[in-house]
Order: sequence, then structure tokens, then C-alpha cells
Amino acid sequence: MSAAASHLDRYPAGAAAFPHRHLTGIAGLQPHEIAFLLDEAEQWVDLNRSATKHDGRLAGLTVINAFFEASTRTLLSFEIAGKRLGADTVAMHGSTSSVKKGETLIDTAVTLNAMRADAIVIRHASSGAVGLIADKVDCPVINAGDGRHEHPTQALLDALTIRRRKGRVEGLTVAICGDVLHSRVARSNILALTSLAARVRVVGPPTLLPPALDRMHVEAFTDMDRGLEGADVVMMLRLQSERMAGGLIPSPREYHALWGLTPERLARAAPDALVMHPGPMNRGVEIASSVADDPTRSAITEQVEMGVAVRMACLDVLTRRRRGTPGWA
Amino acid sequence: MSAAASHLDRYPAGAAAFPHRHLTGIAGLQPHEIAFLLDEAEQWVDLNRSATKHDGRLAGLTVINAFFEASTRTLLSFEIAGKRLGADTVAMHGSTSSVKKGETLIDTAVTLNAMRADAIVIRHASSGAVGLIADKVDCPVINAGDGRHEHPTQALLDALTIRRRKGRVEGLTVAICGDVLHSRVARSNILALTSLAARVRVVGPPTLLPPALDRMHVEAFTDMDRGLEGADVVMMLRLQSERMAGGLIPSPREYHALWGLTPERLARAAPDALVMHPGPMNRGVEIASSVADDPTRSAITEQVEMGVAVRMACLDVLTRRRRGTPGWA
Amino acid sequence: MSAAASHLDRYPAGAAAFPHRHLTGIAGLQPHEIAFLLDEAEQWVDLNRSATKHDGRLAGLTVINAFFEASTRTLLSFEIAGKRLGADTVAMHGSTSSVKKGETLIDTAVTLNAMRADAIVIRHASSGAVGLIADKVDCPVINAGDGRHEHPTQALLDALTIRRRKGRVEGLTVAICGDVLHSRVARSNILALTSLAARVRVVGPPTLLPPALDRMHVEAFTDMDRGLEGADVVMMLRLQSERMAGGLIPSPREYHALWGLTPERLARAAPDALVMHPGPMNRGVEIASSVADDPTRSAITEQVEMGVAVRMACLDVLTRRRRGTPGWA
Repeated sequence: MSAAASHLDRYPAGAAAFPHRHLTGIAGLQPHEIAFLLDEAEQWVDLNRSATKHDGRLAGLTVINAFFEASTRTLLSFEIAGKRLGADTVAMHGSTSSVKKGETLIDTAVTLNAMRADAIVIRHASSGAVGLIADKVDCPVINAGDGRHEHPTQALLDALTIRRRKGRVEGLTVAICGDVLHSRVARSNILALTSLAARVRVVGPPTLLPPALDRMHVEAFTDMDRGLEGADVVMMLRLQSERMAGGLIPSPREYHALWGLTPERLARAAPDALVMHPGPMNRGVEIASSVADDPTRSAITEQVEMGVAVRMACLDVLTRRRRGTPGWA
Repeated sequence: MSAAASHLDRYPAGAAAFPHRHLTGIAGLQPHEIAFLLDEAEQWVDLNRSATKHDGRLAGLTVINAFFEASTRTLLSFEIAGKRLGADTVAMHGSTSSVKKGETLIDTAVTLNAMRADAIVIRHASSGAVGLIADKVDCPVINAGDGRHEHPTQALLDALTIRRRKGRVEGLTVAICGDVLHSRVARSNILALTSLAARVRVVGPPTLLPPALDRMHVEAFTDMDRGLEGADVVMMLRLQSERMAGGLIPSPREYHALWGLTPERLARAAPDALVMHPGPMNRGVEIASSVADDPTRSAITEQVEMGVAVRMACLDVLTRRRRGTPGWA
Repeated sequence: MSAAASHLDRYPAGAAAFPHRHLTGIAGLQPHEIAFLLDEAEQWVDLNRSATKHDGRLAGLTVINAFFEASTRTLLSFEIAGKRLGADTVAMHGSTSSVKKGETLIDTAVTLNAMRADAIVIRHASSGAVGLIADKVDCPVINAGDGRHEHPTQALLDALTIRRRKGRVEGLTVAICGDVLHSRVARSNILALTSLAARVRVVGPPTLLPPALDRMHVEAFTDMDRGLEGADVVMMLRLQSERMAGGLIPSPREYHALWGLTPERLARAAPDALVMHPGPMNRGVEIASSVADDPTRSAITEQVEMGVAVRMACLDVLTRRRRGTPGWA
């Protein structure tokens, strides 16, 4: 058994390790299924750090990255992931405005399917759009972010980053800070981290915290200093500028004063607390540069690196059935 | 002789089967040349339905998809076609506004040629733009739609779809319905289907039917019900929204009432009449959803599938000379 | 020793032939380093003219083309160069407006680096942006044009074109004509051509000539006829339309009358003077069509062709270290 496959004896054999056709969200995944994807991703971290970062297992497969919402880094990350596995990748850049009706979204999905895609990666501004598409196509669908619903590969890359830096996720206290209400990143992370038995806190202004938090098994804090107290991981969220226009928060300057992660505030967390941010950062708003750029604390660039590895794992695992991988066909 | 090549004895040997350097339109093609491309496409339908949908015959060749007019599905289809044949594909997205003068269009063509493209696929808003470019470059040019002129690969994929579903094209009655006047899809289809000995009708409001229809060997109907009477294939055209602004048609609702394909209207056609649409559909305008989504009648998703196969056939056949294929060099 | 490598005995062995990690500009390069890149490019000219224009040496490497400023031909040229060498290429199209602060530019660079890029090609509207990024990443960075600073691959392709058409660069008189002040193309060409011992003149309206020209070892002319007198090469620059709005030049018609390259004006240059233009051309403004299209004089399409070859050479040479090429690792 190769080193890369050494985790396999910890999981059910073959497709039972990850029996899902799609990755539309973290919701619905078992803890061991999440852990399986993280373990699978480890081999790709190693490959990506080698000189020739290529594996041909998706050769001859067509991966369509259908991004109905503008994105730079997530699209790049998926494109690189697909190409490194040898897939033929094509990108569809659509503005949501060109897709005005639910029917048209489904028509687009049916069209991509008819081109015999082997995997479709979708980003869309509407919550639930990805699940809608998954129901209409024959191939695996991966959610690259849909509305305020989920962004599962972000949660997986965050969990992998934490696990590598802290050695575990279980039992850690993770504070997710900022605009939790509107954030699909927060939502997927809450689901993944609680599933992996972390203690999750959400920290933010009362206007930006979601209702029904106890149903999500998280603790809410509207005082930043108290929310960070003793945290092992501080996960900052990006402040969407449109929130400011909506009057939900004060000015960027005031936001920084009240909710920005400064060195002083970080001192409330555990002495070796890890700092994370999904990017792109608003420096000086939700995070101070001195914190973001401290290599002993910040895992922000490592998150980006883990992103490619996690997406390679998802593309690999979800296409095993159609590639006839033994135990998965 | 392989199954895939079993059609070859029906055609002149080698390059005589398709002696054209470019595919700028259906006009100028002999019936047996059209049939040859359709027969060539069949092998790619099979490949695209297999697990590993890849053939390396265009490896090392550069295919440039130069789309001066916005397109999602046609560009994707050509990109996938090129990649599945192993070509290096690159896309040039140009808005027509940045290409204001004829000279500049030619300069762009000369530039793409100087990069040693092995095939150039072009979409452009101006009728005849593709032919202009074809005259200036050394490599094969494929028209992906130019103004109101032609969209030959659409006509080929439609003919292939009909032939597969009906077993033949010859002798069938095909009703092309809607804005025939402004449609390059209609124009290329009229040329291809009449060439293949179908009986073609055009059906639409008098303001949207072209003049000189008898020269095109089609029959015109301004009454939808009469136009569909006994038709074997009903081919709906997309209503361009800008036509409405121009006052050429009434509101979408009225258009649907007069010219939309409803189940009632379809009942006028032959009992097993095939329904087609080049996409994207305006559901509830030119076509009712219940018709579009009826798998026993609608061939709309199959059209998309045939599109990739037909484009693979065109890229393969047109690059044989430069690839030194025996009999073609 | 293969024909393609026959130039190697003229240079220091291995990495000493080109010891730079990045190509941020022509400034800082030794004459023999420029000549080395030109000699390396020659093999790619040959390959690109062959039927199968592919070399696998960058297989498994990831090349990111990060274009923060709109570009069609330069991006295409780099994409084709990368693909012909077998690299996985991905493009990032960013408008400069989305990158408002220097910090964010660096964050983008750090992000691309974390995805384990093996080479990053950057175009940016700000002078010096590329150098800033080069300082922050582990992989080679190639400047594809930054503000008014440099566009080194353009200067290399121009030098290669001259050398192939004239047999040498040394001792030739090259007149660079037009908006020299704002042109990164002019700046990189002045540096490269003077380094290769050409005599360089700059010719243009006084408002469009840079200060400190004698420090750049060029001779300035504000009279077009005198500037062209006896020149071996006439290199026209593109007139940026925004210059006209700024009042720095008169109307396009007047500009053409005073500074456009006409057959009459070209007659002042050497009898076999070469005409060059980086494209895209404003025909009838800075250059008359009869001059641009004269194959005995114009090298404009050859420049485009040399562009792909030069970019292949840069990608190859700069990635040798990480590919473990003997003598370069």
C-alpha cells in the first residue's frame, strides 16, 4: 500500500467511503466522509509541492466550470485542480443577469450535461441553484458557492488547514467572526467544524448574526473580545462592501474599531491561535495587516494552497464511478 | 475496416470526399459532402458517450476560437470539441465594438494566422466577416455564426439529429418557424435540408419572412397551423428580444399566442413529429415548456450533444491536409 | 550537439547564460543574455512552423497568465506559448479597477504563488507592479507590460525580427517613431537595441518625447523626415486614442499628416528599410496601409510570429531551475 493511500484502512471500502454523487454542501455529509476527503487531499498537497505537479487520472474527462457569479480565485483554483489531474477543463463565465429565470438555469444545466460533461463545478448567486442543477444532470456536480447557502470546498480547505496546523480539529475552539448572517463560507464551516467535533463560536454585530444559532450547535457572541477569549482558531470573514451600503454596519473605520482583528484583540485568543481568512481580504477593515502577515499566526496563504488540493480530491473522488475505479463503479 | 470508418466506401477517396479548405457556410457544399461530415460525426457521438472521451489526433495543433460576438454554448461546444481531439485550444473574446473597421478585422485575422494557428473558429456580428478572414489566412476557418449569413455547424448538427431520430432526411417535411428573416440558423438549415432533399417550409409573420423564398426552394406560410400541417420536423427559432423593440413583432405574450409552439399546435404536425430548437429557448414565447420537455418529441438536448460531435468532425476533416493524413495531404 | 542547441558554445554554460530569476524588464540584462534568449527562440520559430508544433518540456507545470489590463494578442501569444510547451495554462482576467490598493495586488500575487504556480505572466496598468509581485513569489515572473515601464518580450521579439530580416542588430540605425513618452514598448526597445549596439533614434512631437534622452543613448528628432533619414529600421508606435483627448496631439488626420509613415516618408529611410509596428495598428493614423501591407518592407506579421517563439524561450529558460535542467538546477 502506498503512503498516499495509507488512510484507506480507516474508511469503509470503495464507494462506501464517500457514497454521494454530488458535493452540493457539507450538510448531509457524515464526519467520516468529511475526514475521508481531507485524507484524500493530503496526497495532492504533496504532489502540488513537487516539481512536476501532474497526475493523469482524469485524462479524457471533461470538467466544466460554470461560474454564473464573478470569481477569480475559486475559478482559478478549480481550473488548476482539474488540469493537474489531466482533465480537459472549460470555463463558462455567465453573469447572473443573463440567467433571469429558473427554467433557463435548468436549460443551461441540461445543455452542459448534453455536452457529456464528466463533472460540473458551479458558482451561482442564488441559494439552492446548485442543488437544482444537480437534480438535472447525469454527472457529479460540485458547489463552488451558491448564494448564502453553502461553499463546501471552502469549508473542507479550512478544515484541512486547521488539521495540518493544529494536528486535529476535534475539541478545538474556533471563532468565526464578522458577517456570519450573509456568509456561505460561515455556514459551510459551521457544518463541517461541528461535524468534526470542534466547538464553534460565531462572533459579530447582532445585525449580522443569523437566528436559530443553537440549532446549529454554535455559541454566539456580540462582544468581539469575549468571543475570542481562548480561541484556538480565529476565522475572519470578508466584509462585503454592499453590507455597508445597506446600513447593516457602520463605516469601514468603525467596523475595524469594533470588529477588526488587531494584534491586541488576537491576544485574547489562545497564545498560539491560528488566524484564517477566506480572501480576498479587506486589510484595515476586518483584519489588520500586522495580523494577516504574521507567518507564525496566519494560515491565510496555506488556505489557498489547501484549496487546490481539496478540489483535486473532490474531482477525483466524485468521478471514480464513471472512471470505473475498482470498488467505485 | 473499422466500424467507425465503414461509411468511407460511399464517398470519393481521401480529400475528394471534402475538398474544401474552409467551412464558411453550407452554400457551396455538395449533398454528398454534407453527408460525409454527418457520417464522420457519428464516430464522435460514440466516443463522447464513452468513459474516456478523448482522441489524440489533433495533438500539437493550435485551434483558436475567435468569438467577436458573445456566445456561451457555441464557444463551449467548440472548445470541448477541440480539447477532446487533443488540440491546444485558446479563446479570443472580442466585442464587436472593439473591431470597428474592416481593416482591423483583417489585421486580427492576419495576427492569429501569424501565431501559426492550425484552425480558426470565428463568430462575428457581421455577415460575410468569416469569408473575409478565410481569404487572408493559411489555415482552415470554421464559421461559428456570422451576422445573418450562415451558421453551418448548427445546420449540420440539426441534420445529424434529424437523421438519427428519423433514419433519414430525404423526403421529410421540415417546418422552420419564427424569425426566419434575421436568422443565420434558418438560412444554413434551409440550404442543408434542401440539399439533402427534405421539403422545407418557413413559417412566420410576414414581417419576419425573407423575400425570394422560391429561389431558396422553400414554401412560405404565414399561418402557423397550416405551416405545421403534417410536418415531420418542427424547428423553432429563438425570438431575439431586440426584434420586439424594433416593432417587428407584438408582445411576447401575443407572439406566443400567434407563433408559439403549443401542444395543440404541434397536434397539426405528423403524429411523431420531432421538435427542435437551437437554444437558448425563450420558454413561453416561441415554445411552450410542455413541448420542449416532452422526451418523445423534443430533440433539443440531443441537438446540443450532436453539436460537439459535428464540430469534432469539422475540426478533424479540415485539418487532415496539414496533418498529412494519407489521401488528404 | 543538435542544430537547435548549436548556439550554446557561444554562452557561459548552464544557468550562467541567463542567471536571472525573473524577466521584469530589459534593464539589467547583459547584451549576451539578450542574445541568448534570441538564440533560444530560434528553435521555437522552427517548431511553430512544423506540422505538429508541440514540445512537452513544461508538462506538469502550471503557468498563470494574470492580465490585470485588457489585452488580446499578448495574452493569446503567451497562452499559445505555454500550451505548445505542454504547460497547464490558466488565465486570470482582472480589470485594474478591481485592484485598487497595492496591498491587494500583493495579496493576489501571494494567492497565485500559494496555488503553486511554476511561472506567472503579468500585465498591469501600473509601472513597477510586476517588479513588486516578483519580490513576493517563489516562481519566475514575466512582465507582459506594466504601465509605462517595460514590455520586455515585445523588445525581444522586435530584436529577433530585426536580426532575422537584417542578419544583425549591431550597427543598424533604428528610428522609433510616435508617442515615445508614454510607450513601454519604446522604452524596452531602446534598452534592448542600444544594448545590442544599434544606433537608436526617437522621432516624434516634442510633447511626446521623454526627457533625459541622452542618458538613454538615443538621438531625438522632432522632424519626421530628418528622423527617418537613412534609417535601416522604422519602428512605428501605436497612437493611444486617449492621448488625443488629452490635447497632446492634434486630430488623427493632422497626426497622420505630420507623423504618419507614408510611402513618401519611408523613401527617406534606407532603400531596404524594415517597417515595424507592435500592433494593433491605427491604419491611416500612425501608418499608411500601403506601407503596412508591403511584404517587401513590412515585418509586422513576422513580429507576431516571433512573439510566440520569444515567449516560449522565456518560459523555457526561466523554468529550467525548477525543472532540474542539468546546469540550471
